[in-house]
Amino acid sequence: MKGKKNISGKGIKIIPLGGLEQIGMNITAFEYEDSIIVVDCGLSFPEDEMLGIDLVIPDITYLKENRDKVKGFIITHGHEDHIGSLPYILKEINVPIYATKLTIGIIENKLKEHNLMKTTKRKVIKYGQSINLGCFRIEFIRTNHSIADAAALAIYSPAGVIVHTGDFKIDYTPVFGEPIDLQRFAEIGKKGVLALMADSTNVMRPGFTMSESTVGKTIDEIFADNSKQRIIVATFASNVDRVQQIINSAAKYKRKVVIEGRSMVNIIGTACELGYLNVPEGMFIDIEQMSNYTDDQLVLITTGSQGESMAALSRMAASIHRKVSIQPGDVIVFSSSPIPGNEKSVSKIINELSQQGAKVIFQNTHVSGHACQEELKVIYALTKPKYAIPVHGEYRHLTTHSELAQGMGIPKENVILMRSGDVLELSDSKAKIVGQVPAQGILVDGLGVGDVGNIVLRDRQHLSENGLIIIVVTLEKYSCQILSGPDIVSRGFVYVRESENLMDEAREVVSDALERCIASNMTDWGKMKLEIKDTLSEYLWKKTKRNPMILPIIMEV
Amino acid sequence: MKGKKNISGKGIKIIPLGGLEQIGMNITAFEYEDSIIVVDCGLSFPEDEMLGIDLVIPDITYLKENRDKVKGFIITHGHEDHIGSLPYILKEINVPIYATKLTIGIIENKLKEHNLMKTTKRKVIKYGQSINLGCFRIEFIRTNHSIADAAALAIYSPAGVIVHTGDFKIDYTPVFGEPIDLQRFAEIGKKGVLALMADSTNVMRPGFTMSESTVGKTIDEIFADNSKQRIIVATFASNVDRVQQIINSAAKYKRKVVIEGRSMVNIIGTACELGYLNVPEGMFIDIEQMSNYTDDQLVLITTGSQGESMAALSRMAASIHRKVSIQPGDVIVFSSSPIPGNEKSVSKIINELSQQGAKVIFQNTHVSGHACQEELKVIYALTKPKYAIPVHGEYRHLTTHSELAQGMGIPKENVILMRSGDVLELSDSKAKIVGQVPAQGILVDGLGVGDVGNIVLRDRQHLSENGLIIIVVTLEKYSCQILSGPDIVSRGFVYVRESENLMDEAREVVSDALERCIASNMTDWGKMKLEIKDTLSEYLWKKTKRNPMILPIIMEV
Repeated sequence: MKGKKNISGKGIKIIPLGGLEQIGMNITAFEYEDSIIVVDCGLSFPEDEMLGIDLVIPDITYLKENRDKVKGFIITHGHEDHIGSLPYILKEINVPIYATKLTIGIIENKLKEHNLMKTTKRKVIKYGQSINLGCFRIEFIRTNHSIADAAALAIYSPAGVIVHTGDFKIDYTPVFGEPIDLQRFAEIGKKGVLALMADSTNVMRPGFTMSESTVGKTIDEIFADNSKQRIIVATFASNVDRVQQIINSAAKYKRKVVIEGRSMVNIIGTACELGYLNVPEGMFIDIEQMSNYTDDQLVLITTGSQGESMAALSRMAASIHRKVSIQPGDVIVFSSSPIPGNEKSVSKIINELSQQGAKVIFQNTHVSGHACQEELKVIYALTKPKYAIPVHGEYRHLTTHSELAQGMGIPKENVILMRSGDVLELSDSKAKIVGQVPAQGILVDGLGVGDVGNIVLRDRQHLSENGLIIIVVTLEKYSCQILSGPDIVSRGFVYVRESENLMDEAREVVSDALERCIASNMTDWGKMKLEIKDTLSEYLWKKTKRNPMILPIIMEV
Repeated sequence: MKGKKNISGKGIKIIPLGGLEQIGMNITAFEYEDSIIVVDCGLSFPEDEMLGIDLVIPDITYLKENRDKVKGFIITHGHEDHIGSLPYILKEINVPIYATKLTIGIIENKLKEHNLMKTTKRKVIKYGQSINLGCFRIEFIRTNHSIADAAALAIYSPAGVIVHTGDFKIDYTPVFGEPIDLQRFAEIGKKGVLALMADSTNVMRPGFTMSESTVGKTIDEIFADNSKQRIIVATFASNVDRVQQIINSAAKYKRKVVIEGRSMVNIIGTACELGYLNVPEGMFIDIEQMSNYTDDQLVLITTGSQGESMAALSRMAASIHRKVSIQPGDVIVFSSSPIPGNEKSVSKIINELSQQGAKVIFQNTHVSGHACQEELKVIYALTKPKYAIPVHGEYRHLTTHSELAQGMGIPKENVILMRSGDVLELSDSKAKIVGQVPAQGILVDGLGVGDVGNIVLRDRQHLSENGLIIIVVTLEKYSCQILSGPDIVSRGFVYVRESENLMDEAREVVSDALERCIASNMTDWGKMKLEIKDTLSEYLWKKTKRNPMILPIIMEV
């Protein structure tokens, strides 16, 4: 099949079900005749306006409708936005998972939590290895990223070869393992690539992303400069190479290491077990043992570098961590940069830590895991695709990526900007959006999947900004006489003790409205409620310029 | 008084009532014996967790308690975080306002809106001019900032001279007026400065802030490069110099200018009237007249560069602007950078504009209005203060500023990091925090000032994340028999039509709890409500892992 021309002229269908626009989770279906493979199965975190939502998972209606065709999940690496929805989706579509060793290890942590280990088939794939699934053959290619064992994919189909980079960067001096296999990209390119789907995250940044190993040097300098102080490093739990470099410095400067934060403990545990982390015997100590050591003998590696309110570092900053109190002189290293949207939470924590006398360091302590412009150009130059399909980015990234691809010689009409849910049919002779499938995110709130929709969110928004007022009245069923009430209960509106007059007047306004309704022999309680609502709403707006949710309840006896 | 030593040894009191930590509004009281002057009177915008709050104004309890001492407001420049609370505070403390011409002009816009023109005394002060207020003499010194007519202050008191920079930068080639009066800083410094209170906003940035006029060059290039397209420039309404440079390019390339957005129209109007903006005759056209011109003959200058949801640009991006539709090819220039916290809203708008085919430009189109490290060093070198009191910044900025001041030779013990509400007593011989006054922000929601406190905000938070469930039941007063209900009403919890079973079961759970209460002859309705609430809460948590607000209401007949 390799390199063969697409004789029938039939195309491969590419259907991103997320990972584009603001829908951050990555999941893309590839379909040819009776075969569908799904690349990645991520989740995304709620937007600000998704009040109370815990997370967002993809809509897989299309996959469910074509359940028999689906051959498996191919996962490029172990980040939440690529694996996080697996436990939810596997309950609906139980097909095998294919990924590299560390990726499978991290996925297994999730499967255990959701009690899915027994029912889920999974297979570890090595770089260079291929698997055959229906009409497809998928080859795993070594790349670099901010987590070890990341893979790009060459997807061979009768319609041609698609190269999907996954999330990647080019790191010639990675901390663990080898540099990205550029030669393999070149070989595949030489044979002819139908389309390149490349990571758009950093496409707006000129130049080259620095090597992960440069961060090690900064960390080492920080250890050298602060030899008397306790050092606390906050970073992403999944950045195993970063943790390795902190451990290397700790070993050099004879410090013990405490790992803090649930996700940090989980991933570090998995990485150690699978041999992705090299830790000298006796270096890790339990958080309870900290008191046996002096400040200059300790390093804490913790979660919370994004200012997440429940993470370990936030709790330390707010002085509500059970086991660690920040003390003057502590050196806190943010080995991360804020993900867009988290800037204010990170600032808040830095302020809190500064106020407690800690020294906060965040310069040159992080590099990105994603390719900048010059790296993307390398991949284009090696693969020389006929079509460019920018992935993994908001629309503004995709448009910038489109310009870059054109700069690399791809004709404008061969650069395809997709939206989530678009169905692209692609062959040597054509590229066309032939349809749409559902691809809005599904909201997860507690145990509820999809039971919170726009109406519920709109109500939450209204309640959050204006609070609510409940009016209850009991009426005699036939005579419509008021038996009890109207009573007024409010929450989130005003501080009632200081606004007694307002509430007394509001009750009178409602009473008057009720009397009017009864006097006019109104028997439709819907109308009566509307009358109460409108009257009170008008009164409150006039008095306060506020617009609380008003809920009239009529009880009949 | 000038230059004289503080013979009595008595100190000047400096009391920041905002402008530090996360409390963004600037207002600082200076007190000496029977005299208080207040520098600036700003507002701040609500933090994310202040749900439904419109704005935050300072707590002026201390000023009200010392009303007789307060001589006036000295305003450094016309930005919201320095003038925005005046209409609220003047209603409580009606003293004269002193400021430069444009600043007074912008303040007058506010006074008109609040019907305070007749009752408020105000006086225009020129650079170099001084005013005497009680024990104080205050001199206005020319500076540069992102709004014209910004002033630093030299505050002469019997205890010594305080130099307050206001918000400033050093701009040797400003667009309007003259560069900052560095010679005057030097002269005052030569005579002896007790304390320097300098702007900390950009203290984390090395180097020098670029001149405002460099932006003009970029704007001109954008006009040259996009001669056929309609150009829309979004910037801060108050950045009159920026608007001037856009107008200059428009004149050069023979385009008409449309001003859009209420605050933009207001400030541009004031700036034109007072001669701070030079607009060729017939250049401004009304938005209604746009259809008379071709794309290459038009520039729109609009609000919304921060992604504010109600601003003109957001409405254009979301295709809900009444008069402007974005069309493919439009060139949109963000002449601004996102204020921390606004990054996501700005990205959202850029995505929306890109999706409509607009070209979005945001590189080299903005410079800051605040001094970077090298500029601050210049001011320290010229004024050579005994004490450094960093102002205008979060705590992390103040600590970095402290290091900079120490680098400029101020001993560590003479660098004073204050929190809002601290009362600093300062003289040649001592600097001591001698007390605290109330300085939490006061929340404004609609017409209500201070009637929304922590309880109300906590309720709004709870409602926003979990929604609410109301249980209403009517009981016979003496027999405790159920006459009607229990009825369940929910909002913001789940989409009820899809969760009928859950709600039916919830009603049964409540009925059972009620029956139990009645059977046990419970007559305390407080206890009965608690029983209902606990039972239902437990049931819902088990079923949904959610925790809605539960409001049981018992009506008695």
